[in-house]
Amino acid sequence: MTSGGPDRRIRPALPDHGAVEAAAERIRPHALRTPMLESPLLDRCLGGRLLIKAEVLQRTGSFKFRGACNRIGRLSDDERAAGVVAFSSGNHAQGVAQAARLHGAPATVVMPADAPAVKLRNTRAHGADVVAYDREREDRREIARALAERTGRVLVEPFDDADVIAGQGTVGLEIAEQAAGLGCRPDAVVAPVGGGGLIAGIGLGLDAREKDIPLIGVEPAAFDDTRRSLESGRRETNPPGRRSICDALAVPTPGEMTFALNRRRLETCLAVSDDDVRTAMAVAFAHFKLVVEPGGAVALAAVLSGQVPCRDRAVVVVASGGNVDRETFADALDGADWTVPPLAVG
Amino acid sequence: MTSGGPDRRIRPALPDHGAVEAAAERIRPHALRTPMLESPLLDRCLGGRLLIKAEVLQRTGSFKFRGACNRIGRLSDDERAAGVVAFSSGNHAQGVAQAARLHGAPATVVMPADAPAVKLRNTRAHGADVVAYDREREDRREIARALAERTGRVLVEPFDDADVIAGQGTVGLEIAEQAAGLGCRPDAVVAPVGGGGLIAGIGLGLDAREKDIPLIGVEPAAFDDTRRSLESGRRETNPPGRRSICDALAVPTPGEMTFALNRRRLETCLAVSDDDVRTAMAVAFAHFKLVVEPGGAVALAAVLSGQVPCRDRAVVVVASGGNVDRETFADALDGADWTVPPLAVG
Repeated sequence: MTSGGPDRRIRPALPDHGAVEAAAERIRPHALRTPMLESPLLDRCLGGRLLIKAEVLQRTGSFKFRGACNRIGRLSDDERAAGVVAFSSGNHAQGVAQAARLHGAPATVVMPADAPAVKLRNTRAHGADVVAYDREREDRREIARALAERTGRVLVEPFDDADVIAGQGTVGLEIAEQAAGLGCRPDAVVAPVGGGGLIAGIGLGLDAREKDIPLIGVEPAAFDDTRRSLESGRRETNPPGRRSICDALAVPTPGEMTFALNRRRLETCLAVSDDDVRTAMAVAFAHFKLVVEPGGAVALAAVLSGQVPCRDRAVVVVASGGNVDRETFADALDGADWTVPPLAVG
Repeated sequence: MTSGGPDRRIRPALPDHGAVEAAAERIRPHALRTPMLESPLLDRCLGGRLLIKAEVLQRTGSFKFRGACNRIGRLSDDERAAGVVAFSSGNHAQGVAQAARLHGAPATVVMPADAPAVKLRNTRAHGADVVAYDREREDRREIARALAERTGRVLVEPFDDADVIAGQGTVGLEIAEQAAGLGCRPDAVVAPVGGGGLIAGIGLGLDAREKDIPLIGVEPAAFDDTRRSLESGRRETNPPGRRSICDALAVPTPGEMTFALNRRRLETCLAVSDDDVRTAMAVAFAHFKLVVEPGGAVALAAVLSGQVPCRDRAVVVVASGGNVDRETFADALDGADWTVPPLAVG
């Protein structure tokens, strides 16, 4: 950065749907085209079609692998040899670790010390070095930036990066193509929002195939920064000390690029409770045989709690990740009400 | 049946790989082409490639939908209008109920009164009538046969039927095609064995694409009738009163047609313990984000317990069903040893 004076960085160009098409080509050899699943029983219960884009089945258990793979796939040989740094509560960590390994790049990931054990363990198992930090007192972004500068490595942003957004956007491309293959035009696509990279990309990916499909974001009520930002028109921040079982979505504020894209494209952003999330995890277990982590279940939770109408419509929800400790998973199943639909039929 | 004299029924012709190709065309509009999944972490742990054919994601949560859909899809208009009868511990029941509904045929299913609640509930929810029987004292086949005769309905056999076997065989076709797409020729395909219809079909389906891929069956140790039958050369029976958590594989004896096919094609049939099965369910949860029922996990259990070598090889295992009560699922995760690989890395 130049010293003194105002910040003269040029605002990086936002990705477009061409970038998503290019990302799809780039990650094709590595990423899975995840299935879109449907349950006849649940559909009858809802009176409409609910399609689940099962991104929990993606390599490393979440969509994050797509963005990391696209970003790292575009590094020069020298950059690749030097390696990458990332900061993440877990899913981006695993995505970066695995994508870096596939491209022969060393990786270091800055992770909160209280991240789910399965995410810490898997990140190391994918071959990355893990640097732990205190979520309440330290700024992970600054730790990662300093580390990247000191070691000459490239920082792979978790969401506020054109290549990362374009990579996540391949989820949107596939949704549009798979829905068309099922003979249906979605009345809404609903996706989780943390930093906003997934849903920003999905908007671009959908538009590459079919314009104007309504796109709806969902956050945990305790981290509703994007919902409030869309209302106020500027990037709002979550107060410190908030808690939710949706660890993957615990982000302080929307990204610059993601917010610029999402304020244009999102119809709305909804909020769900942790109890709604537990019910959604139980429904994913019973009707779809999928293990969905709390943060990955918020879109399904928004539909099941009635916030996104499904009757006589076709709604696509993204189940974005499945990296959950078995204790949290068992608690969610125990905490759900199995005596009423849609659990009583499934 | 003619009265008196020897049984002069003509032995029905065994299905061939042409029947599997025809079944694939017939069920294509209804059945899901389930994904074949791989975990880089688990692969490193095993020193080879383990590919999971995720049939838990099939309509109604198991492969049984394929066979039922093929059989019912071949009924005449009159037969369809009269409806179908089936007997099943659960997965075939759901497959028949859903396939019958799709083809506009009424369905009645004879199910054990102690079948998992989720299977009883779902069979009714798919629109079938359920007739309960006592597993220890009544013969479900006879109940179903009498019912079919009395009502003029067609009995849809759970496994000993050419159309049912051909429908299940589409799993084998897809395995061969998907493995080829991954640039790999499987060193072994491993699948669960109850009545033997799935694995008999898989053999035909594989052979339609690539000859001589070794095919290995797996049973729960308490229901190892096919293993013993392959050894003795004749259809052996399980002693009454045996118990296993693998309810879907609790069949008294191999089918006539399935045994005729399997004695030709299977390399061997292995047996696994209920503890092996619990570990496999936990690995499917942690590494693949899949809910697999006990009977659906025996093939994975055989690999993880070291009975099917995986080092420097590519092994495909079929995860055949995911219809499991949450209590059974939670017990399996609790009962697994999470301190050693492959659970300690995942």
